[in-house]
Amino acid sequence: MTLDKYEDVNVQIPPQPQPAIVLVRPQMGENIGAAARVMANFGLHDLRLVAPRDGWPNPKAQTMSAGAIKDTGPVRVYPNVGKAIADCSLGFAVTARLRDMEKDVYGPVEGCAELKAHTQNGSQVALLFGAESSGLNNEDVSLCDGIISYPVDKFFSSLNLAQAVAVIAYEWQVSLDREQNQQTLPSKIASKKAQIGLFEHLEEALENARFFYPPEKNPVMRQNIRNALIKARLTEQEVRTFRGIVRALAKGRGQQS
Amino acid sequence: MTLDKYEDVNVQIPPQPQPAIVLVRPQMGENIGAAARVMANFGLHDLRLVAPRDGWPNPKAQTMSAGAIKDTGPVRVYPNVGKAIADCSLGFAVTARLRDMEKDVYGPVEGCAELKAHTQNGSQVALLFGAESSGLNNEDVSLCDGIISYPVDKFFSSLNLAQAVAVIAYEWQVSLDREQNQQTLPSKIASKKAQIGLFEHLEEALENARFFYPPEKNPVMRQNIRNALIKARLTEQEVRTFRGIVRALAKGRGQQS
Repeated sequence: MTLDKYEDVNVQIPPQPQPAIVLVRPQMGENIGAAARVMANFGLHDLRLVAPRDGWPNPKAQTMSAGAIKDTGPVRVYPNVGKAIADCSLGFAVTARLRDMEKDVYGPVEGCAELKAHTQNGSQVALLFGAESSGLNNEDVSLCDGIISYPVDKFFSSLNLAQAVAVIAYEWQVSLDREQNQQTLPSKIASKKAQIGLFEHLEEALENARFFYPPEKNPVMRQNIRNALIKARLTEQEVRTFRGIVRALAKGRGQQS
Repeated sequence: MTLDKYEDVNVQIPPQPQPAIVLVRPQMGENIGAAARVMANFGLHDLRLVAPRDGWPNPKAQTMSAGAIKDTGPVRVYPNVGKAIADCSLGFAVTARLRDMEKDVYGPVEGCAELKAHTQNGSQVALLFGAESSGLNNEDVSLCDGIISYPVDKFFSSLNLAQAVAVIAYEWQVSLDREQNQQTLPSKIASKKAQIGLFEHLEEALENARFFYPPEKNPVMRQNIRNALIKARLTEQEVRTFRGIVRALAKGRGQQS
């Protein structure tokens, strides 16, 4: 291994835009470290952790990373998924379990191709992986634009977390190596921060309008609305337009027009 | 996990001929177990060990395999590479380090395609992986018909053994799926009638809220909103939800709430 050279690589601006790998509530440091190692094997360096169970830094993660994690860097830690992908325009949930949600489902090849098209457009994209025990919950997935699922054996489908990262890191690298086919660039999607801003704005207006009824259905209704809107892959301009729409529709409420 | 069913799968004759995964002088039981687990994830069950350092069976391997290794089976142990691949017609060495040997070098995609073509011909084929510390030696490689090499970062090229197995197991499965070329059905999109109903409902509400200003921009603004919403490919249910949203937000307008 050539760790010194690896450090040099980290300092440089990566030659290709690359996806953030987001581990959501990871439990075992060993898996975080193994994920970091295989990411580095395939040229990925943007590792983000959401609420790691054992805190951060984690000595076991560093040991298993074989040098890919130096001290705390370049790993970043966030309290929740929304903050972890705030700068991302597109996020795919990597999960074996398919949800009863309106999300596009991709294989790794197609999913990476889709993400790559957006990175070429200058967008930051993210791949989200759930915890070892429980995976991603529906709230996590509702912030994602699609699901990447692996062709696993239906009788033995539970992939180790670091192995799941290995497959996607490999496939990402392969997708880069594949011949550049001439595609029209997709339009640039608004950041998750902007998307979440719109969701929260709309939800607040709906709250005031007593839309969420009965109250126990509130979380499901919010998720359904987010899932529907996120499919639109709104641009920054479109997010502004929709916030204007919400403002315009809601402003008469409770006062003489 | 559904271990009982997994055992059933083992008892049956595999539906597709599959390569033997041969770990040559593996050191850590954890890596053997992780390799067995990810093999099972992707439908591979023929694991062979050549002179494992810590003997066999290995409790750490069984723990890490998450049920893929039961007692000693289905793993087979051999004293040397020649005996391990005696029944095979074709063997590829999986290694990052290229040798000064007259061997064909493949990427994972091409290597798996080549092996698959031979299994379809009734041949048993093998994929060989070296020890964690030292990899395959030249004597091992000399028994192989070709080399599979991964597109790793040249500055951080040392893959964990189980991760190397993960990539090939995944790629093998993908190569099988590629033939079948099956696609998941997209979710059913609302009729244009329903979509237009939503657009007009929203536009009328926005008209009442004096959102379209200045008037000469009205057609362009409507189009932009329609273009944004149409990207969501809303289902019938989602169209109903959004009409409910428009109704809820607009209903306070012009009257005491």
